[in-house]
Amino acid sequence: QMPRGNLESIHHRALVLAQIRKWLDGLRFREAFECMRKLRINLNLMYDHNPKVFLENVETFITQLDSISHINLFLTELKEEDTTSSMYPPPEGGPVQTSSGSGPKKVDVVSEALLKAMESMDPHKFCLSILTAHVKKSVPELEVALQKVHELRVNPPGAPGAVGAEEALKYLLFLVNVNDLYEHSLGTYDFDLVLMVAEKSQKDPKEYLPFLNKLKSLEPHYQRYTIDRHLKRYRKALLHLSKCGEQHFPEVLQLVTEQQLYGEALRLFAAHSPQHKALTGAYAEYLVEQQQAEQAGLLLWRCGELVRALQAFTSSSSWRNAICVAQEIPLPPDQLALLARDLAEKLTEQRRYSEAALLLDQYAKDCEEAILALITGAAWEEALRLVHVHNRQDITETNLKPALLEAFSSQTAFLETQTVTFVRHRSRLAVVRKQKEKARLEMLDEDGPDCPEAELYSEASSVMTASKYSQSNSRISSRSSKNRRKAERKKLSLKEGSPTEDRALMYALSEIITTVDKMREEVHCLLKALVLFHFDKQAQKLQLAFGEALQTMEAAVPEVWPEGVQTSHAPVTGPNSTANSITASFQQQKPSAAPTDPEVPAAPKMRSGVKWKLVVLN
Amino acid sequence: QMPRGNLESIHHRALVLAQIRKWLDGLRFREAFECMRKLRINLNLMYDHNPKVFLENVETFITQLDSISHINLFLTELKEEDTTSSMYPPPEGGPVQTSSGSGPKKVDVVSEALLKAMESMDPHKFCLSILTAHVKKSVPELEVALQKVHELRVNPPGAPGAVGAEEALKYLLFLVNVNDLYEHSLGTYDFDLVLMVAEKSQKDPKEYLPFLNKLKSLEPHYQRYTIDRHLKRYRKALLHLSKCGEQHFPEVLQLVTEQQLYGEALRLFAAHSPQHKALTGAYAEYLVEQQQAEQAGLLLWRCGELVRALQAFTSSSSWRNAICVAQEIPLPPDQLALLARDLAEKLTEQRRYSEAALLLDQYAKDCEEAILALITGAAWEEALRLVHVHNRQDITETNLKPALLEAFSSQTAFLETQTVTFVRHRSRLAVVRKQKEKARLEMLDEDGPDCPEAELYSEASSVMTASKYSQSNSRISSRSSKNRRKAERKKLSLKEGSPTEDRALMYALSEIITTVDKMREEVHCLLKALVLFHFDKQAQKLQLAFGEALQTMEAAVPEVWPEGVQTSHAPVTGPNSTANSITASFQQQKPSAAPTDPEVPAAPKMRSGVKWKLVVLN
Repeated sequence: QMPRGNLESIHHRALVLAQIRKWLDGLRFREAFECMRKLRINLNLMYDHNPKVFLENVETFITQLDSISHINLFLTELKEEDTTSSMYPPPEGGPVQTSSGSGPKKVDVVSEALLKAMESMDPHKFCLSILTAHVKKSVPELEVALQKVHELRVNPPGAPGAVGAEEALKYLLFLVNVNDLYEHSLGTYDFDLVLMVAEKSQKDPKEYLPFLNKLKSLEPHYQRYTIDRHLKRYRKALLHLSKCGEQHFPEVLQLVTEQQLYGEALRLFAAHSPQHKALTGAYAEYLVEQQQAEQAGLLLWRCGELVRALQAFTSSSSWRNAICVAQEIPLPPDQLALLARDLAEKLTEQRRYSEAALLLDQYAKDCEEAILALITGAAWEEALRLVHVHNRQDITETNLKPALLEAFSSQTAFLETQTVTFVRHRSRLAVVRKQKEKARLEMLDEDGPDCPEAELYSEASSVMTASKYSQSNSRISSRSSKNRRKAERKKLSLKEGSPTEDRALMYALSEIITTVDKMREEVHCLLKALVLFHFDKQAQKLQLAFGEALQTMEAAVPEVWPEGVQTSHAPVTGPNSTANSITASFQQQKPSAAPTDPEVPAAPKMRSGVKWKLVVLN
Repeated sequence: QMPRGNLESIHHRALVLAQIRKWLDGLRFREAFECMRKLRINLNLMYDHNPKVFLENVETFITQLDSISHINLFLTELKEEDTTSSMYPPPEGGPVQTSSGSGPKKVDVVSEALLKAMESMDPHKFCLSILTAHVKKSVPELEVALQKVHELRVNPPGAPGAVGAEEALKYLLFLVNVNDLYEHSLGTYDFDLVLMVAEKSQKDPKEYLPFLNKLKSLEPHYQRYTIDRHLKRYRKALLHLSKCGEQHFPEVLQLVTEQQLYGEALRLFAAHSPQHKALTGAYAEYLVEQQQAEQAGLLLWRCGELVRALQAFTSSSSWRNAICVAQEIPLPPDQLALLARDLAEKLTEQRRYSEAALLLDQYAKDCEEAILALITGAAWEEALRLVHVHNRQDITETNLKPALLEAFSSQTAFLETQTVTFVRHRSRLAVVRKQKEKARLEMLDEDGPDCPEAELYSEASSVMTASKYSQSNSRISSRSSKNRRKAERKKLSLKEGSPTEDRALMYALSEIITTVDKMREEVHCLLKALVLFHFDKQAQKLQLAFGEALQTMEAAVPEVWPEGVQTSHAPVTGPNSTANSITASFQQQKPSAAPTDPEVPAAPKMRSGVKWKLVVLN
């Protein structure tokens, strides 16, 4: 025989593992278990080796082990870790273990499988192992375990040698902290059990006895409520409290408000009861605090709290609901008109002119204000509709036509500034990219500074200092979905020479494109209105200007956002390149292709499908 | 002296060019010109060498050449080609020529510069060169040239030796085809000039004299109209015809209709004249044919053709305009109601339920139908508003509530199928990608088929044949912006094993995401309506289902669209790789990163900013 040594012992374990695997594959759990226990091989391997097979043969496993203490040992050793990947990797060519990823936890799966098997085989015999399995779960089921003990106490098993309540409790105390157990025993509402646990603990009877006695004197539902509340099980506490009768309702309200259990509470009381109404009132107050006034309004309305519902809807500009509730109250006509004006004002502030106009027209009966709101909102056709409904052609002359000309001027001027900014940003971007590309090539090419690109560089930098601008037009951000982008753009800087300048420019360009592209519908409507009132020259000018702006931007997209996320650089290969230089050139490309921090803004999509041109203006 | 030979002659030319460049830089045009003419060097170089300097010194150039025939020679040799890049590249280190790209053509720029200079210096002296410059333009200005001849004929130059009309015409005939010149001479409306040209031509006087005589007999405007029409100058013809008085208006109408000169014609007649009205009528007919009935309606309306305008607006579902015109006519109430119903039906077909409801409510005075339209369109709040306006709470019970429950069921079912399809496509995509990656590695790695990946391949392909499905849910396409995508998707096939399967799956996934993401607003409104009518359970279920669907899709995006356009492969580098293998690995990656034909669909943007959840349902 060879002398023992390191090499030999490694070899030995591999052999042993191979043998264990063979046994496990052959469902010879007993042999495997004995061997693993002796050689201190982690017992998790019994399951990890092949989870599916193990779960399908749990009963065989239990039968073969045939020992409460062995089963307990196995249960106690269970860990989330997969030993086949951490400690005992399977040999090459072995079956591939597919790690389950998420899903239920392994410890829970195994405990539950063993529990089910033991409960069906012989709950009395496996009593202690069953307790172990409950305690072992990732969220220990102490109450279920205590419930078992409680059952043993109420119905002591007849069979000889079966585990009694006393013994089971002792075992549990061995597994679990006694104070935890005491608290959870309270949760069984079984005072004898509580006493049993308390006696095993080191607690002073003077401490717990008065508390228990006080509990015992309470009405059962209220008793359970008190216990649940003591254990901070507020949902259960609420359930029991709700059964304690009307005189305890103030406590319900307090509990619900304290613990924000509104939804649960509403489900516990009949929909049209006074309690339901009171709870809704409390909930509504909370919702208003949480800026959810509209939802508060819905709850108040459905339980008949109309005045408060009206308040909630009004404060959240939920005007349709507000008006409905007002008519249900019913509000007298003059007050309804005032309400409508109030709501219309709020909507106007939010640039919801058409809705404001509806309120003014139909509820405040003020068609003039309604038409003016529509004109302000550039809802030309709808304004004209109301003009005809109310026979107010005078407003066409006094307001509509001047507003059309005003809109023409402002749109034209806006397009002008957008286009100018766009062109400037685009040229600057070309310069910045050239500089970056040059810097990149210089880093690759270590020939030194006397290469022909040096001239190019100085040229580019002089262009850079020549062009002058600072920030993009402020009107863009007020028009486009600013909030999200704002945060991203904060990281970028349009300042010349800033390291993020190229991306800042791309953002700015993208925003201008989006803004201008969004104008299609508005311009289309304005063009039609201009034509209707014989303002053909203005319409033609606007159509031309908008068409040119869109074309400029469309044409720039392939330049600003080249194919394949702007990696327009060809890979640096050729007779003089080495493996390293090629790799370097690709790695140099990467950061510009998909930089990590503030991402390269994607090319905006232009909605060329939205037709806006009028053929009569061509 | 060395014997003459090839080498020497090349050397010679380089020297000559250097000399010419020096002369040109020194503004010694005469020396340069003489030398170039002698050595047959293309005269374009005079300009191409430094366009800016040439244009700034045109007068010097003319003065130095001091010869009509030399200037003519230079003009005749002008070509678009840039000789500094085609024939005479500047020596290394010389000033870089920035090719202007687009912009006005070189020939036109040079001709125009010379024209201006000669006209200001001495139009009589340079007469023939001026004619040459006009003829030389990219669109020859024959009429202008003929106009010059005409002027010479009317005001013969007094200066001795100045060119007369006769001589100028002869020179023109030498430059231009005689028939072209004859046609263009007609365009000057100067019959003597026409005769002069005709006489020089080989034309038979019996042919052209009757035509000219007939023309001479006509009223001047009509005469010019006839000529312009003969020359197919329809815009000019229309202008002259419009001055011929009312009796010729039928001809105007015919010309306008034939040549579709509606816009021009409308500008030629006063806005409220009967001619304007007649033209508008014709234009409107044409626009209706071109599917532009709404624009036709606008023109008809503004010139007072109300009945026809109403027709045009109705046929284009331009309901607001239609109603306005109807009230302007005015239509009697019962007919207005019928019209409103008619329009409402059209709008309903286009799923524009809210607009249909407005028509039914306010013009057809049928609040019941209006409310039903709103219910069909899932505009719950607006339906409820009309219920309250008209005191029809009965409809809430009979229609609104059942519709809410129905909407709940269909939305839940729809979400279910979308999610199932989504998950299936996603898993299939993972399989397809694995296969592609494997194929890629095999192509790189020329070790042959006995590598361990062979097993993987057979495994993957068995998974592939196991999963079964054919097409994506048909409801998706009906919901999303289908037209554009349809074309793109046609090229892609979801069929298993198709070469575009991965991209087809990405499209399908992207469409499901877009469709589901679009539901935020609709679900939000439905949830509120459900809560209002105490359908809390349904609302909770829907909120849960929609939340889960969104989460599933959000979580899948980084997997389906990995960073940097799905190039998740690390570059293949390492001790065993060569320059070629690294390059190959990058080139292999490219097609999957940015394939050319049907592009890889971009990751859809989810609008996580759109809040749809109700806290009262949590």
